[in-house]
Amino acid sequence: MQPIHLYNTLSRKKEFFEPLHPPMAGMYVCGPTVYGDPHLGHARSAITFDVLYRFLRYMGYQVRYVRNITDVGHLENDADEGEDKVAKKARIERLEPMEVVQYYNNRYHDFMRMLQVLPPSIEPLASGHIIEQIEFIKEILIQGFGYEVNGSVYFDVEKYNQFHQYGKLSGRVLDDLRTNTRDLEGQSDKRNPFDFALWKKATPEHIMCWPSPWSIGFPGWHLECSAMSIKYLGETFDIHGGGMDLLFPHHECEIAQSVAAKGHETVRYWLHNNMITNNGQKMGKSLGNFITLEEMFAGTHKLLAQAYTPMTVRFFILQAHYRSTLDFSNDALQAAEKGLKRLQSAAKAVSGIAVQPSVPVSPELQKYKEEVIDALCDDLNTPIALAHLFDVVRWVNSTVDKKGAIHPDDRALLDMLLIQIPTEVLGLSDSDGHTSDVETLNGLMEMILEARAQAKERKDYAASDAIRDRLAALGISVKDTKEGVTWGRFKK
Amino acid sequence: MQPIHLYNTLSRKKEFFEPLHPPMAGMYVCGPTVYGDPHLGHARSAITFDVLYRFLRYMGYQVRYVRNITDVGHLENDADEGEDKVAKKARIERLEPMEVVQYYNNRYHDFMRMLQVLPPSIEPLASGHIIEQIEFIKEILIQGFGYEVNGSVYFDVEKYNQFHQYGKLSGRVLDDLRTNTRDLEGQSDKRNPFDFALWKKATPEHIMCWPSPWSIGFPGWHLECSAMSIKYLGETFDIHGGGMDLLFPHHECEIAQSVAAKGHETVRYWLHNNMITNNGQKMGKSLGNFITLEEMFAGTHKLLAQAYTPMTVRFFILQAHYRSTLDFSNDALQAAEKGLKRLQSAAKAVSGIAVQPSVPVSPELQKYKEEVIDALCDDLNTPIALAHLFDVVRWVNSTVDKKGAIHPDDRALLDMLLIQIPTEVLGLSDSDGHTSDVETLNGLMEMILEARAQAKERKDYAASDAIRDRLAALGISVKDTKEGVTWGRFKK
Repeated sequence: MQPIHLYNTLSRKKEFFEPLHPPMAGMYVCGPTVYGDPHLGHARSAITFDVLYRFLRYMGYQVRYVRNITDVGHLENDADEGEDKVAKKARIERLEPMEVVQYYNNRYHDFMRMLQVLPPSIEPLASGHIIEQIEFIKEILIQGFGYEVNGSVYFDVEKYNQFHQYGKLSGRVLDDLRTNTRDLEGQSDKRNPFDFALWKKATPEHIMCWPSPWSIGFPGWHLECSAMSIKYLGETFDIHGGGMDLLFPHHECEIAQSVAAKGHETVRYWLHNNMITNNGQKMGKSLGNFITLEEMFAGTHKLLAQAYTPMTVRFFILQAHYRSTLDFSNDALQAAEKGLKRLQSAAKAVSGIAVQPSVPVSPELQKYKEEVIDALCDDLNTPIALAHLFDVVRWVNSTVDKKGAIHPDDRALLDMLLIQIPTEVLGLSDSDGHTSDVETLNGLMEMILEARAQAKERKDYAASDAIRDRLAALGISVKDTKEGVTWGRFKK
Repeated sequence: MQPIHLYNTLSRKKEFFEPLHPPMAGMYVCGPTVYGDPHLGHARSAITFDVLYRFLRYMGYQVRYVRNITDVGHLENDADEGEDKVAKKARIERLEPMEVVQYYNNRYHDFMRMLQVLPPSIEPLASGHIIEQIEFIKEILIQGFGYEVNGSVYFDVEKYNQFHQYGKLSGRVLDDLRTNTRDLEGQSDKRNPFDFALWKKATPEHIMCWPSPWSIGFPGWHLECSAMSIKYLGETFDIHGGGMDLLFPHHECEIAQSVAAKGHETVRYWLHNNMITNNGQKMGKSLGNFITLEEMFAGTHKLLAQAYTPMTVRFFILQAHYRSTLDFSNDALQAAEKGLKRLQSAAKAVSGIAVQPSVPVSPELQKYKEEVIDALCDDLNTPIALAHLFDVVRWVNSTVDKKGAIHPDDRALLDMLLIQIPTEVLGLSDSDGHTSDVETLNGLMEMILEARAQAKERKDYAASDAIRDRLAALGISVKDTKEGVTWGRFKK
């Protein structure tokens, strides 16, 4: 297997990726808090780790990919006080919180499917793992890194920092936090303002709550990821991913919790995707400047000059390295739209190139293939990989222009470079999952159009017209052009 | 609101449906155990209650529809001993049980989407409600209707029957059960063989387990539905649905659990859909004679003469009343395919009929509309409703034939009868992409098989063989049978 290097946020450098139990690889990624419609930010994180998931599988790993759904405990402004985001939405919409969860969970899945984001192997809900979280708190308490006040349990950051290093992932230093964290006087039972909740006693109006040894309440937001990642991937696992906005406090607290309970770090490679910006400002729900995926695909947001297909959005996101910020603009999206079309046209043109065993093999294609794989192995550098795929596109177009023939090995390489890698690894399918249906359809159409050509050749125009009419009845139009016969489907 | 009558399995008669808190209506339906691919039986139950859900909404109710996913505790043969169905599948496929759950849960959702089954409002997982189930067991124990043996907790049917009537839903009598239930000697801690598990202590190899006051173990299968229906719909709620195969023991035990814990019945209307049979025999996974939905839509099962679209399958299911058995046959499915096409063609023809305010209103259409709604109000009689929709189809076709014009009010009625009711209430939309793919495929295959028959007729066997070979290369097999030529797709 070719070595893969990934940038580990913890060590701040690219590291050789060596899973604990090859060929297995375990990956945990922070999924959405399901209280609103998915937006571009969700798409970037999901697509980044989808490509990593696909690439690891392509390289021969058996990946168990766990991505959670946060449906309880995520309070407003990511703080320890204030209302639960899901419960608040439920109250406003006069629904049971789980109806809100189900609705936005379904929406999230619908849009991820459109973006060709593969479903993870396991997708656990925070509310479905309350026992596991309670057990986790017990372990932290036994180790002495938590304390209970009035039915709530908090993580003792001060104490933890005496034995371990709190802030190592984000580079924060406790002394700075001490001076910079505001204490909302009288509003908190915490010993220190930078302590965080493991369990919160529910106020009477809070309806998402469960019994625990400390109170009827609910788990703190950070806890679910510690508990569920370990449950499904083991006490030490390979990759933990998420958006850079989760680095602090969420992932920092996750590390503290896991180290406190287990005595050691549980994550070997921490990966973070950067944000999508809008004129340089982070795009996010809390900032009110976000574009939902529904608006993207329908072109209904005021910032949008047009609608963009899911595959255009995916291509746009892959054109930036996942650790760079990606600035939203219509120009960039329109360029992505064109780029994707060029890539897809070249893929289609390949089947029209004659294959001839006597033609010599082209050394460039082998080089392009290596460059594409090298780029992906180099911390998943999709923009470089795409740039090399466009070298292939140019090669194909010039071969078509010259009406040249290619060696069968080159044909296989082209299939790999322009079909297999774009669809399987980059997820840039143009057929919405029905690939095999499309293949079959193309094959059947080829047979029928040959029969039509033969009928024409023998001047049996009744037969060739009948074929055209029957295809039209099936929603397929046939056009005779200078270059030959083309066909397409129209909406009936 | 026009009164709706529903057949209540508990009272064995049609009852006027009056929800507890109109215009709200609560509905709980037993969903799948996710350890295998969804088959026709799943489709029937899901479609039955989907139509009820759609119809209640159409009639103005705000429905909270809860359909669970069983991912733990459902043991083989629905018994209290033996292996957990999900865990067994996980062991065979060498996966973590939750990977099995996620995989088949995703498959179930994919196929339900193809069948235009709406997602329920809440879709709770059994494994996500362990605390709720533990709390439920505590209530049963406090009321004295359960007992603990060696870390497992059982429901005391004998004791329950002294105060309440065990068997009232299914009509079983405890004395009969006493003589007919086999006791697997030495294999059970139960006092009586008809007692059932509320909590099972896990054996060492059992990995889906949680801590409880009694042991590290897992809940009994019946418990989840009592706990989750009450959690999301309240201690008394309107409708509980499920397949007739769940009537005993599952729903009987649910009633006993809920009455034991709460002191009263929780369900007001019990609804059960009947089974799909195959030559009179029940079709089911445990019998090995089931057809998966994937096989149905691809035409790959040996019993299938062709592929059937999801909408054909849906139409086929709606052509029988949900409380009748529905016998599988290619003839019936082909008739459904034709019927659906006639309905859809008539719907399309409507837009071509001239609208003329001077033309008198047709009294028949108003009558048809009343008949359709009456049929649905009469215990969801979809076959009668469809029959009346075909009266409308005939009316439209004869109007088109006579090149007649219609009054604008009639046009509105036709839109309602041929578009709104078929799509919104019956869920017979023709808009999903997959349907048109299958239709196109069937149409192209028809053309190609005709060409093959013609080649054979003129004894051009080279041509007919070439067609067969090229189809095979596309993953399509052709068979010549006494009844004619059939084809199907195989996995390449």
